[in-house]
Amino acid sequence: MSDQNRPGRPRVGVVGLGAMGLGMARSLRTAGYDVGVHDLRPDTAAAFARGGGTAFGTCGELAAAVDVLVSVVVNAAQVETVLFGSDGAADRLRPGSVFVMCSTVDPAWSAALEGRLAEKGVLYLDAPISGGAARAAAGELTMMTSGSAEAYSVADPVLEAMSSTVYRLGEHAGLGSKVKIVNQLLAGVHIAAAAEAMALGIRAGVPAEALYEVITHSAGNSWMFENRMAHVLAGDYTPLSAVDIFVKDLGLVLDSARPERFPLPLAATAHQMFLQASASGLGAEDDSAVIKIFPGIDLPKPVEA
Amino acid sequence: MSDQNRPGRPRVGVVGLGAMGLGMARSLRTAGYDVGVHDLRPDTAAAFARGGGTAFGTCGELAAAVDVLVSVVVNAAQVETVLFGSDGAADRLRPGSVFVMCSTVDPAWSAALEGRLAEKGVLYLDAPISGGAARAAAGELTMMTSGSAEAYSVADPVLEAMSSTVYRLGEHAGLGSKVKIVNQLLAGVHIAAAAEAMALGIRAGVPAEALYEVITHSAGNSWMFENRMAHVLAGDYTPLSAVDIFVKDLGLVLDSARPERFPLPLAATAHQMFLQASASGLGAEDDSAVIKIFPGIDLPKPVEA
Repeated sequence: MSDQNRPGRPRVGVVGLGAMGLGMARSLRTAGYDVGVHDLRPDTAAAFARGGGTAFGTCGELAAAVDVLVSVVVNAAQVETVLFGSDGAADRLRPGSVFVMCSTVDPAWSAALEGRLAEKGVLYLDAPISGGAARAAAGELTMMTSGSAEAYSVADPVLEAMSSTVYRLGEHAGLGSKVKIVNQLLAGVHIAAAAEAMALGIRAGVPAEALYEVITHSAGNSWMFENRMAHVLAGDYTPLSAVDIFVKDLGLVLDSARPERFPLPLAATAHQMFLQASASGLGAEDDSAVIKIFPGIDLPKPVEA
Repeated sequence: MSDQNRPGRPRVGVVGLGAMGLGMARSLRTAGYDVGVHDLRPDTAAAFARGGGTAFGTCGELAAAVDVLVSVVVNAAQVETVLFGSDGAADRLRPGSVFVMCSTVDPAWSAALEGRLAEKGVLYLDAPISGGAARAAAGELTMMTSGSAEAYSVADPVLEAMSSTVYRLGEHAGLGSKVKIVNQLLAGVHIAAAAEAMALGIRAGVPAEALYEVITHSAGNSWMFENRMAHVLAGDYTPLSAVDIFVKDLGLVLDSARPERFPLPLAATAHQMFLQASASGLGAEDDSAVIKIFPGIDLPKPVEA
């Protein structure tokens, strides 16, 4: 890895070049970082490095070369592999470096991870992200973070380069993940509610375009209604975020509350709706395809190319 | 009733001077109309008339004096009384006048009402409203309307004087009410979801103010989360719109879909949450008080006066 970074800037790596991670690595590169990257698909890492930056063959090699390692993988199991799998990062990160965990996970697991890394002298930021692939590529993510002042003091320039808003929620790891869980509860319920409402309106004979126009200017609006029902109007279920993501995320929401014996009636109902969609073979379609579980309605067709 | 109205303007009356109707009557007066009013509480009508306009003792007397009668009562049963009760309006409205029905009702009932009034030569607009008391008083309501071109041609100046946006959804009565029902489904589910999400966050130890700040800037936001959770943060459950309104409105949503055998899992769940709140003695509190059904959480306290 070259020494092209400006003095005082941390050396930074990104693990996981999916839609979000690739955008984040690019926005770091745009901000002037010499970004180290690793992905299970070596071609993806090599393709990124051709535009600038350095591809590493294993998490461990990348970890040894950076001060801040940003992990953008699908779930907690993949984070475990990144850190503690063969050629994992945990034993190669130098003491005082920071592991930035961006996945949506059980808050209790994230809080425990801080302690496991502390045993190795590695600092930790609980840092789930929100905003989608386009905003990731533009360096305009929202990050919901928590962790120690020491961890922030190293990683702050990296967080700022990737985000338009960094929420700093407290010094305890887990708070960022708790807020992300609450956000996912609302996002999942709102997508399912938007589908239920739009399906009812279509069934009742209201033109879908008119319904969208009125609701997006009324008290029934939500960020998700406005965003996802545009996909339904276009008849375009290309997965920007898939049904199965909310099968997973609402499952996490419910799992996080069960040990506390805390009831979540709407999250549980919405989860069942995404499960029904997934069981119907819609798991890989856009999450707005949850509207297809409602029978007997004529959904808008895609415009012919 | 005086002849102070400008030539060409319809003579207008408002039945029902509750929070919404009073604001609408005021905004018509501000727009220069000599407004006729009737309310079951004669003092309320007289108090309005002292500022301009004319109070009538019965619906029938008011109906005989106007070209457009705007009905702003609580539900379909009250509309039945306004029109067909003793001293009701239906037999006193002159042929060619327009009855503007602003309540949230079953769309099938509204569609049938158009035919019942047509037998008497009276025109009809299905015209549920949205926006709250403050916007009603400012002439900035949203109206979700449908009806015949003939009815609009008489009532249009009245609609425009009361509203910032008049959606004209088609020539069939019932379409306005169908859109309102869809809006109420979303509004009710979003209030209950906001309560569930905020309760989960508070139970997990996230500061309520921080949670509000993040969610209102994230994809989990809704118009209702932003509006109603401000009441929870303030610890102020003064009813701007009461829990029992959503017991009624989500009940209407479910009733409207049942004859079609159409499933509404989230509306049904949210309805149960409002029923639980009402059964717990919270029916007259602000609808955000549905958060109080979640046990074991410390809600923000009101600031001491």
